[in-house]
Amino acid sequence: MASMILSDPSSAASVHRLSFTRFSNSLVFLRRFVGPLHVFSHTAALPRALSLHAPCSSRFITASMAAEPSAKVIDGKSVAKQIREEISAEVTKLKEAIGVVPGLAVVLVGDRKDSATYVRNKKIACESVGIKSFEVNLPNDASEQEVLKYISDFNGEPLVHGILVQLPLPSHMNEQNILNAVMIEKDVDGFHPLNIGRLAMRGREPMFVPCTPKGCIELLHRYGVDIKGKRAVVIGRSNIVGMPAALLLQREDATVTIVHSRTKNPEEITRQADIIISAVGQPNMVRGSWIKPGAVIIDVGINPVEDASSPRGYRLVGDVCYDEACKIAAAITPVPGGVGPMTIAMLLSNTVSSAKRAYNFN
Amino acid sequence: MASMILSDPSSAASVHRLSFTRFSNSLVFLRRFVGPLHVFSHTAALPRALSLHAPCSSRFITASMAAEPSAKVIDGKSVAKQIREEISAEVTKLKEAIGVVPGLAVVLVGDRKDSATYVRNKKIACESVGIKSFEVNLPNDASEQEVLKYISDFNGEPLVHGILVQLPLPSHMNEQNILNAVMIEKDVDGFHPLNIGRLAMRGREPMFVPCTPKGCIELLHRYGVDIKGKRAVVIGRSNIVGMPAALLLQREDATVTIVHSRTKNPEEITRQADIIISAVGQPNMVRGSWIKPGAVIIDVGINPVEDASSPRGYRLVGDVCYDEACKIAAAITPVPGGVGPMTIAMLLSNTVSSAKRAYNFN
Repeated sequence: MASMILSDPSSAASVHRLSFTRFSNSLVFLRRFVGPLHVFSHTAALPRALSLHAPCSSRFITASMAAEPSAKVIDGKSVAKQIREEISAEVTKLKEAIGVVPGLAVVLVGDRKDSATYVRNKKIACESVGIKSFEVNLPNDASEQEVLKYISDFNGEPLVHGILVQLPLPSHMNEQNILNAVMIEKDVDGFHPLNIGRLAMRGREPMFVPCTPKGCIELLHRYGVDIKGKRAVVIGRSNIVGMPAALLLQREDATVTIVHSRTKNPEEITRQADIIISAVGQPNMVRGSWIKPGAVIIDVGINPVEDASSPRGYRLVGDVCYDEACKIAAAITPVPGGVGPMTIAMLLSNTVSSAKRAYNFN
Repeated sequence: MASMILSDPSSAASVHRLSFTRFSNSLVFLRRFVGPLHVFSHTAALPRALSLHAPCSSRFITASMAAEPSAKVIDGKSVAKQIREEISAEVTKLKEAIGVVPGLAVVLVGDRKDSATYVRNKKIACESVGIKSFEVNLPNDASEQEVLKYISDFNGEPLVHGILVQLPLPSHMNEQNILNAVMIEKDVDGFHPLNIGRLAMRGREPMFVPCTPKGCIELLHRYGVDIKGKRAVVIGRSNIVGMPAALLLQREDATVTIVHSRTKNPEEITRQADIIISAVGQPNMVRGSWIKPGAVIIDVGINPVEDASSPRGYRLVGDVCYDEACKIAAAITPVPGGVGPMTIAMLLSNTVSSAKRAYNFN
């Protein structure tokens, strides 16, 4: 489930893959990641951008890291399950109290198999918690006007409380125009600049928080991790994960630094952090030596690396070298099964919040 | 001029004064700053929030700091003058080419003498570069609807390219409602959340950048300070200076940390910075020991401190202990005469940009 969600080209794992190519130990991956923003081919079993080799070598292992794994595993799969149950209960309550069923509309353009899979998964997730899903499938040669017409209809449709445009769109369409057409009250992805602006500003509240960074913070909350006054480093500055994650940490009174492709000493800066959120799409980039003992690590990356022992020929790893990190961190999310399952749970959560807000229901 | 502009309650120096009271060496100022957001009384000569004592003591002075001042002085007054001349030339060009005169409308509510002074200064500055200024003065008991009506009129008025609502508004008005009513194409203050969102997002462009942080970055540019790849620390996280300054530095590929009232070790973090922008309103808070040798310092604070030797009984100092800093930094803005004069120059610049955009004039 996690891998399917996180290989969604509109989600965290893939979009900032291109932006983080100057770390010294990641240059080897540069060419592999200059390609389409999605990771998996929609036809083949093998990922397009598969890394041949991304081991966690032992050269950075220190005495403290040589110990047995001691980090608490932040189990996103289990938390996401719990959140879905809570959402399901909320949906029931909403229906019983005022007869309203939250609705999520998904607009899919073209015949990409991967996109169709992601949309189907979202639909299944909606149905599992009682959210009604609406779907429009348009052919690849549909016009931008047609897409805008459907968005406009969903904007005006009271049964729809969230609208999601499945990315990528065909190349003849202006993605920004189309995303901007989703009314802010139904922008459950939370990517509208007005939402981001409100997220950045003190004293303002966004309508929605983008799903993946919201999932990261939710994991910290549910595992009782103090954020206030802590040093936090966010690795990666994408619009959909790194930047909003930094704004969220800042809102909770962390002292935040964003480390990115132009940062000269990422290892040294990251080692100061009590909380690390990594969202760059570089397999095993964050080594044990980057981590302060006792830090809490949220690993957003989902990176395929070659693995002959796997029936698929590859396995998924995070941005953080898990084997090294789990010996030095206080807590860490696994990949898969960490942040991945949280993204869709937060999408459901945003949809229900939107429905409640539309009817002023608390 | 600078002191008048920067004591403007809608400007940098005053608004975040309240938010930064937990630094160990600033607790003494706490009570003094829990008061109206504006610094100067509109009737008396003495500032309301005057600090009795804010010396740069010698206890932090190290060997390197004991040297003679060596920092280059970043002369905001002179840069602002040059920018005004450039703006004046642009205004002439715009008028000669297409007959358009940029217009700035200022809405003033109530009879505060300080607000009247700031509005008058803005008007004079506009006239000095050929920008037409429009002004509405409403009585203190005007209704919110009346103010909104004037804003709506200015929104629709083609001769007006920028609208500025003088703050503070009378307490019976909802400031956020009123500011949000200014159409984004004329929001020359750049405080609209949509502008801030675009500023935060990669690949998006704000219509306007807030004037004071824009002035800070302009000073760095005009003094040839490299930003890309540098460590930057912004002290203070206000919506109008600290936060947008951090976003601007981030857009220019600095590695940015925001230090704020909940930061546990501000001195240690600030000492890592190649570029420091301080905007907290705490006199002399940033000591020599906070500064890395060779750092560049932009000091946004304008703080009145008691000075018996001054005819006014006080003088203005920055957030940074200038005497210590100028011996260790590579370059520093003085207070007054640093960032202060840049704010109004950027307001004029935003107004002209708006007029040019309205007529698609490059």
